[in-house]
Amino acid sequence: KMLGRVLCTVLFVGALPSPAGASQGHISVVLLGATGDLAKKYLWQGLFQLYMDQVSSGHSFTFHGAALAALEPGQRLMFDVLKKLSCPPDEAPDRCAVLKDQFLKLSQYHQLKTAENYTALNRHIETLLRQEGLKEAGRIFYFSVPPFAYTEIARHINGSCRPPGGAWLRVVLEKPFGHDLQSAQQLAAELAGFFREEEMYRVDHYLGKQSHILPFRDQNRQFLDPIWNRHHVERVEVVLKETVDAKGRTSFYEQYGVIRDMLQNHLTEALLFLIMELPANVSSAPEVVQHKLQAFQSLWGLERSSAVLGQYQAYDSQVQEELQEARGYVSTTPTFAGVLIRSHGLRWEGVPFLLTSGKALDERVGYARVLFKNRAYCTQSGSLRDAGHSQCKPKQIIFYFGHGALNTPAVLVSRNLFQPVMPKDSWKEAEARSDLHIFGQPLSDFYMYSPVKERAAYSFLISNIYHGRKDFFITTENLLASWAFWTPLLDSTSRQPPRLYPGGVENQHLLDFEMVSGGLAFTLAEPAELLSPGGQMPSDFRAIQSKFRQSPLVSAWAEDLISQLASDMEEAAVRSVARSGHFHLALSGGSSPVGLFQRLARHHFGFPWQHTHVWLVDERCVPLTDSESNFLGLHRHLLQHVRVPYFNIHPMPVHLQRRLCVEEDGGAELYAQDIVALVANASFDLVLLGVGTDGHTASLFPRSENGLEGAPTVVLTESPVKPHQRMSLSLPLINRARQVFVLVLGRGKHDITTLLSRVGHEPRKWPISGVSPSSGQLVWYVDYEALLG
Amino acid sequence: KMLGRVLCTVLFVGALPSPAGASQGHISVVLLGATGDLAKKYLWQGLFQLYMDQVSSGHSFTFHGAALAALEPGQRLMFDVLKKLSCPPDEAPDRCAVLKDQFLKLSQYHQLKTAENYTALNRHIETLLRQEGLKEAGRIFYFSVPPFAYTEIARHINGSCRPPGGAWLRVVLEKPFGHDLQSAQQLAAELAGFFREEEMYRVDHYLGKQSHILPFRDQNRQFLDPIWNRHHVERVEVVLKETVDAKGRTSFYEQYGVIRDMLQNHLTEALLFLIMELPANVSSAPEVVQHKLQAFQSLWGLERSSAVLGQYQAYDSQVQEELQEARGYVSTTPTFAGVLIRSHGLRWEGVPFLLTSGKALDERVGYARVLFKNRAYCTQSGSLRDAGHSQCKPKQIIFYFGHGALNTPAVLVSRNLFQPVMPKDSWKEAEARSDLHIFGQPLSDFYMYSPVKERAAYSFLISNIYHGRKDFFITTENLLASWAFWTPLLDSTSRQPPRLYPGGVENQHLLDFEMVSGGLAFTLAEPAELLSPGGQMPSDFRAIQSKFRQSPLVSAWAEDLISQLASDMEEAAVRSVARSGHFHLALSGGSSPVGLFQRLARHHFGFPWQHTHVWLVDERCVPLTDSESNFLGLHRHLLQHVRVPYFNIHPMPVHLQRRLCVEEDGGAELYAQDIVALVANASFDLVLLGVGTDGHTASLFPRSENGLEGAPTVVLTESPVKPHQRMSLSLPLINRARQVFVLVLGRGKHDITTLLSRVGHEPRKWPISGVSPSSGQLVWYVDYEALLG
Repeated sequence: KMLGRVLCTVLFVGALPSPAGASQGHISVVLLGATGDLAKKYLWQGLFQLYMDQVSSGHSFTFHGAALAALEPGQRLMFDVLKKLSCPPDEAPDRCAVLKDQFLKLSQYHQLKTAENYTALNRHIETLLRQEGLKEAGRIFYFSVPPFAYTEIARHINGSCRPPGGAWLRVVLEKPFGHDLQSAQQLAAELAGFFREEEMYRVDHYLGKQSHILPFRDQNRQFLDPIWNRHHVERVEVVLKETVDAKGRTSFYEQYGVIRDMLQNHLTEALLFLIMELPANVSSAPEVVQHKLQAFQSLWGLERSSAVLGQYQAYDSQVQEELQEARGYVSTTPTFAGVLIRSHGLRWEGVPFLLTSGKALDERVGYARVLFKNRAYCTQSGSLRDAGHSQCKPKQIIFYFGHGALNTPAVLVSRNLFQPVMPKDSWKEAEARSDLHIFGQPLSDFYMYSPVKERAAYSFLISNIYHGRKDFFITTENLLASWAFWTPLLDSTSRQPPRLYPGGVENQHLLDFEMVSGGLAFTLAEPAELLSPGGQMPSDFRAIQSKFRQSPLVSAWAEDLISQLASDMEEAAVRSVARSGHFHLALSGGSSPVGLFQRLARHHFGFPWQHTHVWLVDERCVPLTDSESNFLGLHRHLLQHVRVPYFNIHPMPVHLQRRLCVEEDGGAELYAQDIVALVANASFDLVLLGVGTDGHTASLFPRSENGLEGAPTVVLTESPVKPHQRMSLSLPLINRARQVFVLVLGRGKHDITTLLSRVGHEPRKWPISGVSPSSGQLVWYVDYEALLG
Repeated sequence: KMLGRVLCTVLFVGALPSPAGASQGHISVVLLGATGDLAKKYLWQGLFQLYMDQVSSGHSFTFHGAALAALEPGQRLMFDVLKKLSCPPDEAPDRCAVLKDQFLKLSQYHQLKTAENYTALNRHIETLLRQEGLKEAGRIFYFSVPPFAYTEIARHINGSCRPPGGAWLRVVLEKPFGHDLQSAQQLAAELAGFFREEEMYRVDHYLGKQSHILPFRDQNRQFLDPIWNRHHVERVEVVLKETVDAKGRTSFYEQYGVIRDMLQNHLTEALLFLIMELPANVSSAPEVVQHKLQAFQSLWGLERSSAVLGQYQAYDSQVQEELQEARGYVSTTPTFAGVLIRSHGLRWEGVPFLLTSGKALDERVGYARVLFKNRAYCTQSGSLRDAGHSQCKPKQIIFYFGHGALNTPAVLVSRNLFQPVMPKDSWKEAEARSDLHIFGQPLSDFYMYSPVKERAAYSFLISNIYHGRKDFFITTENLLASWAFWTPLLDSTSRQPPRLYPGGVENQHLLDFEMVSGGLAFTLAEPAELLSPGGQMPSDFRAIQSKFRQSPLVSAWAEDLISQLASDMEEAAVRSVARSGHFHLALSGGSSPVGLFQRLARHHFGFPWQHTHVWLVDERCVPLTDSESNFLGLHRHLLQHVRVPYFNIHPMPVHLQRRLCVEEDGGAELYAQDIVALVANASFDLVLLGVGTDGHTASLFPRSENGLEGAPTVVLTESPVKPHQRMSLSLPLINRARQVFVLVLGRGKHDITTLLSRVGHEPRKWPISGVSPSSGQLVWYVDYEALLG
């Protein structure tokens, strides 16, 4: 109580040099985890900076440190930190000393452990405000605590500490915001029970370092508009290299790894700032978020082959020591990752985005780099060329986040590109240091700008929280979109042993990687002597081959299975084109083949699409542009990405006369006629089928004789599920094919797979059991989950 | 007579060291133009080399020099040359001296001027053979004469000098083989009147220097197969730079220029060796030619914007002096050219092929270079990297033809690519000279091979002629395909003033060029002070704008007109998509819009194809895949190269039920329904029309009321020319459009254009005169030829 009164007295002395003063209201800042690492290193300094900046703003402040520790030891710990707060070099030392003194007096420690503690804190703030006759402007709660504590604290704040009346509440959250999509969704749902979206500020402290990318793009629109696209950009790299390792932090790191720690958040955000469509107003947070989400939509999903993963050699022993694991313990947590991200949007299609981060590397550096294509031919030979502005030199734009050779944040633009427009008040042209080389060029080849005043990332963020500017915080939508993007890669690589590397400069070429058929691979073969002492890692992923229903069976984990199937299809296509000049391929719809279609589109450059005819195995009676249409899925995931001639694409005519599968429009007969006219003997070169949990295949359903035998080769059928009306190839037509591949994926298909392994030819019960090419080959592609449950 | 006997006696002494000897028969070599420059510099030496190589082959030889000069002065001139023949360094001097003596004795001079001279030559050869009892193997006639003399000489040889019986005739022709497609066709037709294709050997002496490219590709298939394509190759350059200028040769050069002199032949052949599909048997001349012709087929046509042209500054005064032109004479003959060639084939689509050649440049060098994409990311920073095999270094394969820094022919392969297989007997690994840098890299970065024995190009060619190997000669088909490829560029640039350059190292960046929206442009703006003293060149090409039939008129030369129209279309499309989310475009068929379609496909990357619906203005009643189909043309020249979603492509349904435009199939009504369903108000955003010489537009023909008025928006009509049956949008529907552009090209349209400028609204006589959008805009795009005749 005494302390409170003293503080409030001081408050008016310290915080009201400007007469406008108290009219703006009072702000209470509560730092949860006030004695933790982050608070010690950055947050208190950031709050002190806020105080120095805003002492004349008309707002009054109090700063409440809180932790689990009891009052006295907590107080001591906290004030030990506060006493060490430093004055920034651009602040007059006298003024700073006075302000520091005031800041200390405005700060107090609270134990926050029980519900009562929160009620007490709230009462304390209210009393203080009432006693001093202050209007409340708002409260900031900064969560510098482990994420498992979030929900509990959030419940207390929402229950007991909301400011009354018109005053605002802002809660600041530090990553990690979940561990994968599901946990992030869960955390987001819990927090949404306590706070409104606009009350939450999710910090990615790297956003402070990247905050100039969008304004740069905006201010240099005139130069960038013509070249910021796939025709001019060769690649985009976002890189965060560290020299430190995870020692001392393995209890955290072992759960997360480099992708969750760095790529999912910092690197992704930087990439999005580079590749998103530029909003009309780059300072409008909602517009920026909207464009970010659209950018996520334009990215191809990640696969196991999208990444290369590494782990520094000492990591396992550090984990064993710090987490008391057994000596033989082998961790697969990656400490290094290179990831290839690609877009199918018009602007960036074909441009590789490379994200790289790792610990125990040769240098500490962070940058985002846009490298442009060399579109020039320099007639004068290199040695005689005036090197100044030659168009044959590399052209690049680099957003340098700090450290590395430059040891300062910077923006670099190759002089043969353009001289950028930079806001004079915050960026200054740096001196050319011709002794320094960066990205293979002397620094004098660049226009280089560095910040007039280098501001700590946290100070920038805290200032934005104070101003209620949400641009550089992660919204829930943004967060979940990012987890949705990264989770498939995390899942598919979770069992993969990372490449071991010695650390530091000894890594040499061991972590260099290359783009190989749509994915990444380390350039050097794995050196045997670097494998973990436990010897060879077991490979779970080897495809096994045997028989299923008397026919060949290929089985593997889903991703490998699909990659094998795609290769087999390409081989069949190439063989068929060599034999007959064309390849007649009939494809099924549904969700199973989506991954296959994407793989074909992305990895199979040698597929003879020009000579391939694409037919549908079955179709739902909806317009082709309806989201239920099999053809639409096929178009979206495959056809729009490859070059099948228009004439060779054969959607089923389910929408003649602009009406759906009307018997007298004769759609089935038309399709049958087209097949007869174009496909020799009506024998498709390859038919791809799936299997339903009820044993249906194509759109041939159990307990219906339609299409199982007889003359009509294309039939209208009825599905037990919506949309009911279907068009389908008949079983006799399917059985005329040269090859039939059946793809079965997922645990949901385990029961029917087991059943099918036992039953004979009973198409009336299970139409798939009637598939038996009369003179062709049948191959089953069944993943481990479907096969083994 | 005496001389003949002496020669024949010597012949047996000299030519029969091997006992197999005379059984192989006798070969008579006749060199026409025996005292000319080429003969002096290369051909006699080549023939002497042939003699040295084949003296033991079993063939006997005589060498007959011929020219217009009378016997005595000609003889003197010729033997002056022969006496200076040099012995190759790898030949034992003693043996060479003996052989040279024999060679001189086997050689004689003939005056070949009149028909009688040829008869005499023939009689001479026959007598000689009969007297010595020799069987005749064949005769080689080497034309080292100006091309205007070809036909006359060919007639005489065919008339009087063909060897009798089973002996062969081979005639060897030196370029130029014509001046453009038409003259080349004419020359080819004339020669075909005298010689069979297999008798003609058209020399491109550069083929000798390039002859190892195909074998290299063949021997290194295993390495090249995966990377010899658009996914791995960044660009291909073929370069021939000279330091000399055209001084002393302007009478030839002024007629030809650098494109005819260098690009059409040498550079094109080298490029084809690089980009053609590799034949199964690279030594099969017919297979090679067939693959070359296919490669030509896969290239986009050249346009004015495909090239940058230059002329060294002293050229005009050299021409004035040597050709006695007036002082003010200005030549537009280019002495420098950079040309961008692109393929639409699967292997090379999107890979730029850059051909460059010029006189008065900074160095003499020739090479063909394949530069690969950098697909690697090197995690270790550059300074710490072991540079040896880093994948981050440039990867390239260079076929070095000679001169330049290396001063020897060579094959260079980056060490981070692969170690090539080279035939040990003809290529040796060169020493690494780390002091030399080439293409930005130290020579030690390459595997480098040079020929074991450097063989003069002519000696290689003459040896091939002797062996009857036609691989490295230009067949008539090949020649005409090349002229067909180059002639459009020659035509479209003939009026274009080249950029002037000072010559030598002073050219600096003046001739550097860049790829810009599908074409080339010099990097630096034209420096005003370098323009010819005559001041600004008149620009013939400026588009003029005025009125035609009360509507806006855009007029220019065809190429500029099309480029303007394409830009206007893109602008309309972008505007429409911004306004309504889509762009409904109705396109006409026929030949006029082909250039437009190609331009749209190649230059308009910003065209919003994803949101464009493509409709047909009219269609011929043939299957869509028939070569007469408008849709097929549209597909081939435009749709297959851009990304219009399948659903947005609307061919006319002229082939329902697999029969053509049958009234009761209701195709016209279906199309009308689709339009109503998708196009708001049935008002197309843009309709592109053409005009027939009879005033028809779309498929609306004079003297038929069909489609001119009334309710049906899509109609079946009858054309006066085949195929008669058509489907067409009606005039009322066309007139509902927001914009209608009418494109009229070519002198053939001059009469109808003139007529239309005078007549009013008379759609029954001239359907085009009925085009008058009720609330939209009509713009005429008429080229100068149609407008001005």
